[in-house]
Amino acid sequence: MTETDAVLRAVRERVDPTATERERLRTVADRLVERAEAAIDERDLDADVVRVGSTARGTWVRGDRDIDVFVRFPPSLERDELEEHGLAVGNAVLPNGHEEYAEHPYVKGEFEGYDVDLVPCYAVESAREIRSAVDRTPFHTDYLATRLDDDLAADVRLCKQFLKGIGAYGSDLKTEGFSGYLTELLVLEYGGFRALLEAAAEWHPPVELDPESHGEASFDDPLVVVDPTDPERNVAAVVSAANVARLQHYARRFRDDPRESYFFTSARDPMDAAAVRAALADRGTRALAVRFDDERLAGLVEDQRYPQLRRSLDGLVRGLEERGFEVVRAATWADETAVLFCELAVAELPAIERHRGPPVHVGEHAAGFYEKYADDDAVYGPYIDGDRYVVERERSVRSAAAFAESELESVALGHAVERLVAAGDYVVLADADVAVLAEEFGTELAAYFDPRP
Amino acid sequence: MTETDAVLRAVRERVDPTATERERLRTVADRLVERAEAAIDERDLDADVVRVGSTARGTWVRGDRDIDVFVRFPPSLERDELEEHGLAVGNAVLPNGHEEYAEHPYVKGEFEGYDVDLVPCYAVESAREIRSAVDRTPFHTDYLATRLDDDLAADVRLCKQFLKGIGAYGSDLKTEGFSGYLTELLVLEYGGFRALLEAAAEWHPPVELDPESHGEASFDDPLVVVDPTDPERNVAAVVSAANVARLQHYARRFRDDPRESYFFTSARDPMDAAAVRAALADRGTRALAVRFDDERLAGLVEDQRYPQLRRSLDGLVRGLEERGFEVVRAATWADETAVLFCELAVAELPAIERHRGPPVHVGEHAAGFYEKYADDDAVYGPYIDGDRYVVERERSVRSAAAFAESELESVALGHAVERLVAAGDYVVLADADVAVLAEEFGTELAAYFDPRP
Repeated sequence: MTETDAVLRAVRERVDPTATERERLRTVADRLVERAEAAIDERDLDADVVRVGSTARGTWVRGDRDIDVFVRFPPSLERDELEEHGLAVGNAVLPNGHEEYAEHPYVKGEFEGYDVDLVPCYAVESAREIRSAVDRTPFHTDYLATRLDDDLAADVRLCKQFLKGIGAYGSDLKTEGFSGYLTELLVLEYGGFRALLEAAAEWHPPVELDPESHGEASFDDPLVVVDPTDPERNVAAVVSAANVARLQHYARRFRDDPRESYFFTSARDPMDAAAVRAALADRGTRALAVRFDDERLAGLVEDQRYPQLRRSLDGLVRGLEERGFEVVRAATWADETAVLFCELAVAELPAIERHRGPPVHVGEHAAGFYEKYADDDAVYGPYIDGDRYVVERERSVRSAAAFAESELESVALGHAVERLVAAGDYVVLADADVAVLAEEFGTELAAYFDPRP
Repeated sequence: MTETDAVLRAVRERVDPTATERERLRTVADRLVERAEAAIDERDLDADVVRVGSTARGTWVRGDRDIDVFVRFPPSLERDELEEHGLAVGNAVLPNGHEEYAEHPYVKGEFEGYDVDLVPCYAVESAREIRSAVDRTPFHTDYLATRLDDDLAADVRLCKQFLKGIGAYGSDLKTEGFSGYLTELLVLEYGGFRALLEAAAEWHPPVELDPESHGEASFDDPLVVVDPTDPERNVAAVVSAANVARLQHYARRFRDDPRESYFFTSARDPMDAAAVRAALADRGTRALAVRFDDERLAGLVEDQRYPQLRRSLDGLVRGLEERGFEVVRAATWADETAVLFCELAVAELPAIERHRGPPVHVGEHAAGFYEKYADDDAVYGPYIDGDRYVVERERSVRSAAAFAESELESVALGHAVERLVAAGDYVVLADADVAVLAEEFGTELAAYFDPRP
């Protein structure tokens, strides 16, 4: 047995569901389906019940306790009726559940120790005809049910665990990683976890996979996996370039040095305030943080919050750099509060800035420039440098912190962030004062200051 | 009479030579020619004597006391004989003179209150056949003698004085301005000083003038005036873009507001050390100066010194900016010592610098980058940013002053400067310490900190 085989076997012993777990899951899932069917009959509805998701496909990792049950109604049903009947069935099946809302409402609840989603959808003819994203899910399960045998399902589990270990699992917009369905398709496409790793180590993005050879749409993403059930959709659309690179990096690391630890990373020890101050002193950088305490922002669901924060961080970084404050690195974190964090090479600049005018020979434009500044005692110049007029005029903001205090509105921000900035509902922290962030973001700061992947 | 006429008349009253001055000059010049001819006869040489330069052409400005007398020998004469005979004649004419050396030796001396150059040259058939630059000069005088009437000569004087007033007169490599001959050709070409100013106000460099329509060579200069006596030569080759722009700027200023003061700028009051410190504090900039005290550099003639210093200044500025120290403005001055002076927006940077590696997917190159840094405790990372590896590694120099102290050798410097830098024969001054330069360069610093032209 090779070293790699040994590692994978050891991982399987930790991630394969036990026989008891399988049996118990099957029993509970069957009971849920029965309850749903009974609720349908009782209301004399035209609907059927299907199980979807990883527990339906046998690809769940030991300990997962999610069961997804979909109730399919005919496409002729009006949407408000679908919602009404769907919730009625859901509440009957999960009397202790509560209603949630994605594209339309569904019921979420606990049942015999499992976390259950009971979701109404339309029984469309094909995934091309879906009315909402959930209509697509049963097609995924159908597609995989006939293709994933036990060996491949076991490899999917290995792969999911590997992606979890390297921090690239999950299609939420915080992670921007690999979804369960994407993981299943990749393992299926390459014929196993090891073959996928070998291929990924040599990928040259953009990587395009099209299992059913639809060849219809083209996508502008580093990784493209055309949905076998919907030619218009890239299953990997959400995966960031960094997560593609991360998979490639670890695929090579694992090839060169197979270790179980890649699958199970332990959480970092959080940094305390003193350690943050010491790290900044060691690096000799200047820190700047913009912190939002408002619950209006904290109240956003994760999938809205992170894109907004990333957009705002990009805007802040661009704004700083356009004004001459060079950014070394930047990050955004959110928990109770949300933070835009920048580490700067330059945080203070002179009172004046060089402003290059037109070449002296460009007639009216040059004369206009000269006349604009000729009698302005606040500027140095205009003087002639090479063939151009130049002035040195007063700089509007001399420090990065002042920029964040007074000109943050001028950069591109996420909508919710923009509202808070307009209202002045934010705090600017500079240099050693950012150490206070360790109280809430000690783990994130630890990863930031020791970024080795 | 227009305002402009009045101003020009007033200037003429100050720059036209007086009748007495003309008469006196003619007398002295005739006597010099006679003495030269006598010395030739006495030695039984085959040579003739010609007067050249502005006093020969009637274009000198009142108070100029330069007389140039050339002794022309046949081209068949060997060079060492030309030098020997030329110096013999020169020493006979100017018994109190001394020998100087340009392309070949000549005699310089005082004669009845005038500064006289007595220069041997070859009597070539045309300026195309010259053996050294001085052979060309008699052709210039011949060309202009038949073309410059008294009115044009008066306009040449106005133009020279204008160029002096705006700091653009002189073809030495410190000034990089307009020579006397170039001024004469420009006034001749445009038919007068005012016509030249009107044209210059609207110039769109590159400006190409070719009085004799030679149309042979092409030049890569902002101002091209093809020598009527030598089609291969741009008389304006030495004129910098800044001096072309300066002429354009003042041509417009004079057109809009004719004033005598453009012709006669008074010297600036020198700045003292306290004023330099105050100016830096007001601007909030960081100063850096590299000063050479060595007489090896101070001993260079001006025409070697300034190109060397400018080249060195460019190298220093590029070196600083490549390392992240943004330069607001820079200047070089020379007198007893020579100085490279930079004003910086950024003079200090963090201990670390961002170093972007290759995209993770570029196979061996990426793996090599990762392995190079993976176990290096002095760097942060490698981490993955987008599709690339990035490290933050130690910065080699954290301050502009340290760069000037320890890495000045790494930039492109003029040769003589390079030697001094290699020997460590220089001093670095930073921030308030540069104020000591006011002792030697108070006037230059005054112009630097109040650069309005």
